[in-house]
Amino acid sequence: MNSSIEKIRNYLKNHRLKAILVRSTDKYFNEYVPRFLSIRQHVTGFDGSVGDAIISDTGLNLFVDGRYALQASKQAVGFTVHVCQNNESIESLWLRKLKEILGVNNILAYDPETVDLNLFNRMELELKSTNSLKSAREIFQEIEKTLPDPELKEPIFKIELDICGEDYSKKHKKLEKFLQENNLDAFLIVKLDDIAWLTNLRSYCLPFQSSIPGIALITKSDLLLAFRKNLKTDALKTVGEQEFWPHVLEFLKSPKAVVGIDENQTSKAHEMALQALGVEIKNISNPITNLKAIKNEKELLHLRGAFAKADQVVYQTQNFVKENFEEKSLSEADVDSDIQDRFKKSGSKQLSFRPICASGKNGAIIHYGSPDRSQKLKEGSLFLLDTGAYYEGYATDLTRTFLVGQEAKPWQKEMFTLVLKASIAGLSARIRRGTLGLQLDAIVRAPLWQKGLDFAHGTGHGVGINVHEFPPRIGPTSTSVLLENQVFSIEPGLYFKDVGGVRIENLATVVSDPENNDFLRVLPLTFCPLDEKLIDQSMLDTHEQNFLNYFKAEWQKEASWPSLPPLKSIKF
Amino acid sequence: MNSSIEKIRNYLKNHRLKAILVRSTDKYFNEYVPRFLSIRQHVTGFDGSVGDAIISDTGLNLFVDGRYALQASKQAVGFTVHVCQNNESIESLWLRKLKEILGVNNILAYDPETVDLNLFNRMELELKSTNSLKSAREIFQEIEKTLPDPELKEPIFKIELDICGEDYSKKHKKLEKFLQENNLDAFLIVKLDDIAWLTNLRSYCLPFQSSIPGIALITKSDLLLAFRKNLKTDALKTVGEQEFWPHVLEFLKSPKAVVGIDENQTSKAHEMALQALGVEIKNISNPITNLKAIKNEKELLHLRGAFAKADQVVYQTQNFVKENFEEKSLSEADVDSDIQDRFKKSGSKQLSFRPICASGKNGAIIHYGSPDRSQKLKEGSLFLLDTGAYYEGYATDLTRTFLVGQEAKPWQKEMFTLVLKASIAGLSARIRRGTLGLQLDAIVRAPLWQKGLDFAHGTGHGVGINVHEFPPRIGPTSTSVLLENQVFSIEPGLYFKDVGGVRIENLATVVSDPENNDFLRVLPLTFCPLDEKLIDQSMLDTHEQNFLNYFKAEWQKEASWPSLPPLKSIKF
Repeated sequence: MNSSIEKIRNYLKNHRLKAILVRSTDKYFNEYVPRFLSIRQHVTGFDGSVGDAIISDTGLNLFVDGRYALQASKQAVGFTVHVCQNNESIESLWLRKLKEILGVNNILAYDPETVDLNLFNRMELELKSTNSLKSAREIFQEIEKTLPDPELKEPIFKIELDICGEDYSKKHKKLEKFLQENNLDAFLIVKLDDIAWLTNLRSYCLPFQSSIPGIALITKSDLLLAFRKNLKTDALKTVGEQEFWPHVLEFLKSPKAVVGIDENQTSKAHEMALQALGVEIKNISNPITNLKAIKNEKELLHLRGAFAKADQVVYQTQNFVKENFEEKSLSEADVDSDIQDRFKKSGSKQLSFRPICASGKNGAIIHYGSPDRSQKLKEGSLFLLDTGAYYEGYATDLTRTFLVGQEAKPWQKEMFTLVLKASIAGLSARIRRGTLGLQLDAIVRAPLWQKGLDFAHGTGHGVGINVHEFPPRIGPTSTSVLLENQVFSIEPGLYFKDVGGVRIENLATVVSDPENNDFLRVLPLTFCPLDEKLIDQSMLDTHEQNFLNYFKAEWQKEASWPSLPPLKSIKF
Repeated sequence: MNSSIEKIRNYLKNHRLKAILVRSTDKYFNEYVPRFLSIRQHVTGFDGSVGDAIISDTGLNLFVDGRYALQASKQAVGFTVHVCQNNESIESLWLRKLKEILGVNNILAYDPETVDLNLFNRMELELKSTNSLKSAREIFQEIEKTLPDPELKEPIFKIELDICGEDYSKKHKKLEKFLQENNLDAFLIVKLDDIAWLTNLRSYCLPFQSSIPGIALITKSDLLLAFRKNLKTDALKTVGEQEFWPHVLEFLKSPKAVVGIDENQTSKAHEMALQALGVEIKNISNPITNLKAIKNEKELLHLRGAFAKADQVVYQTQNFVKENFEEKSLSEADVDSDIQDRFKKSGSKQLSFRPICASGKNGAIIHYGSPDRSQKLKEGSLFLLDTGAYYEGYATDLTRTFLVGQEAKPWQKEMFTLVLKASIAGLSARIRRGTLGLQLDAIVRAPLWQKGLDFAHGTGHGVGINVHEFPPRIGPTSTSVLLENQVFSIEPGLYFKDVGGVRIENLATVVSDPENNDFLRVLPLTFCPLDEKLIDQSMLDTHEQNFLNYFKAEWQKEASWPSLPPLKSIKF
């Protein structure tokens, strides 16, 4: 039992609390939680990306999804590991178990910084009448102090107007209009990529991100921008994060100000801070979400350039591996360092996520995050390579699956070509304006469903300042409308346990259909070559073959970057 | 100006009402409103199936959808005709116009029998603060008296157990469980096909229906069943409709009973009647909706037999027309009477809707309901034939489009084959369990979307006791889950104004996939031959050709009815 658990249990005892919720997220709701903010990892020993713990006076519970079942059991010594079944979310799972853990007339402690208001309401609803909730910020703060808080020395940089396409003042104008229309004096901006979008400021101080940790409050005339200690910029006036809340009232000018927050994104701690100031709080949908999702012309051009670079990097690594795996006895870890080197050489200063370098049957593990030095690449096996990097503060994301060796087996070709058919269904789709993510999702999956096959992850996600941006989301439950100039992935796959996996991921946008304004056309933005050895031409129809010819021709054009041809819709 | 409008305006004046809403529906919310219940038709002169009127002291307003714009202008003399745009519903349109019509501090009168509670709430919300609502049943009753109320002499018959598969007592048990689980003493059954499902009683006394007009209240132990005058049965104890409400309290046994109603289906008049009795009213989703949608084995077998008969009828008419159109100088009206005769000869006593017999460019009118005696069939034109009939109280529905003459033009073949591709995408679909109507809808439309084409109606609807039963619904906004043993249509089409239309409608079910339990397979249930002259084989891929071979083989088997082979899923 580690000392922080002892510390927690003493705290529970002294405060007459039954149990405490320790969430995996941090106060910024980062997708990739940095080590120095991961209390859950520190307390449980489990270092997977997602998993919440509930520690009671007598029990230790850890809640994870299926991919982490094994890892959590190994790492979280002494913990009972609960695994989600049937698409239940981790939160729903522990909410369901709460009564069992708490008994009756007891108190659950939580960290208001890692519980958003939506979740808080669900917790309250679940517990009402039998138990209650109490903020326990102090104990979390105490544990935080024992974690190494780095200096965050990476510089802040400002994205050139020629890349981001819109300066701060133009973006501020849009938000001013939003405040006006909704009778708000201010809006609290808590998502880091929203701050990055608004200010055009970036830094690579957090893992796999280009956003800067901080918080902001926007009014019709001004922006109160706070960054974590040691991060200062001259571009916009900032204060340190500790000084943010003490400055808010003065900044708002009126104690009767109406401040908008988005309950789905804002933490209980933020609400408590606003309540303490006595301002009026109004729940409203975050306006930046949709503004950020629609890329402007400059951004699109920059993204295409970034994708072209990443296409080259992946192509080169793919060739390097194919040519050298035997002679150099390459392992998964070697491929990992090869591609990281190439990303660096291509001008990227940061990866957009931990590369997935999966050889053979490891390809069946959807989030295979630990390339193995002892896993040597074998002749005739498949290699799944899913990587991305930042170029000037914008992310790339691409997956190629290729054959290591000379001769593909029939099952490998069939599997690859089926995934390719699903890819093409998405990348060449023409859709009615107003089509939802779940409709495009069905169109992509249909060729796999036809064979009784499917994949247990979404079909696509937005890409931009973060590698995973929503909207758009293309998945079985996604009701977000696909809109012109959104940029997103189409990434169907097939995975067979103990056999291997195929995923083909490309990035795309949707453009207005010049022939019929009621329609949009999906348009691919990545063109890294597909492994011809894995394509069974006999399984493709004319439309699919036409698409592949177009795709190869575009790859040739892409090499001419930075003079990319204008984007235009394609007809097959 | 007809006398009923004068009568209405006098009523408005005497009661200090500004305007009155006259809806097209009747008290049973019938899809096909019988003449003797259509006050709106009587008052406005407009005889289309859908359209609501608002008559004020100074204005006459009629609200219709696009397909009735012309007809309404011609028939509703003196009325201003408002036409829905952009998929707005008729109700939303007049709700939007209400303020303009009413001014302020005025009262809108309405008939509580034709306004469901959901709509009533919307009306109240729209008017609150400026105007108010008042029930005006008396004036509607007065007008009703002037309409010829027929004797409804058609006999009531009981569906054999061998056809309906479940007797009343078994169905009652399911509802008893529902009442128990929801702490209800009773549930008010107002949908006529729900009463037909529960009692297994039918009659052909209403147009295009097999349901009997009436109302019912079910308790854990009993059923209070009321039929409209002159309709009596020995199968279950009934009272006359006029005696229903006076009997309810005695039947419930307790004045404190809790009675469930479904607000989406129950009229304001029903709620007012329950309120007058002083019972507790609880809004709850109608349990029969989903029970009725899932067909049991006997029902499925009967439906297949019924569909086989309708397939033969349509096939015969199709052949008759192709062989005789020139010599007999056939008109649309001749085709109409030919197919009606054949339905009768095949044993059907009632059509399930008014046949659509559309020649040439009339095929582009989606609800073309008036076959024209002067519209002679022309060599080389398309004929769209959409028909259905009742066999033992269950409906059929089938559309075939065929060539009149010898040689199809290239555009006709392209149009037909595109619709065929969409049909096959639906009829051969393999879908994940849990797939929603809007996902299957996207799969069906995708081949048309790919060409920048679409159709402005749903892809499919449930079929059973009524020809249009929901769920399931397969359309762009349908979130109903597709379930095993539902029976529904797949009916894509293409329509070009002043050119013509193609629709191919088949009925289908979904069955568990024997190869993979996570999946369902769509399985066609109708096999009436498609016109080979209209199929461009070069546009079909292998999967589509395999499907057509299967479809033709099944047509041969279907002829062997009543010894149909067991239903099993097909793999192409």
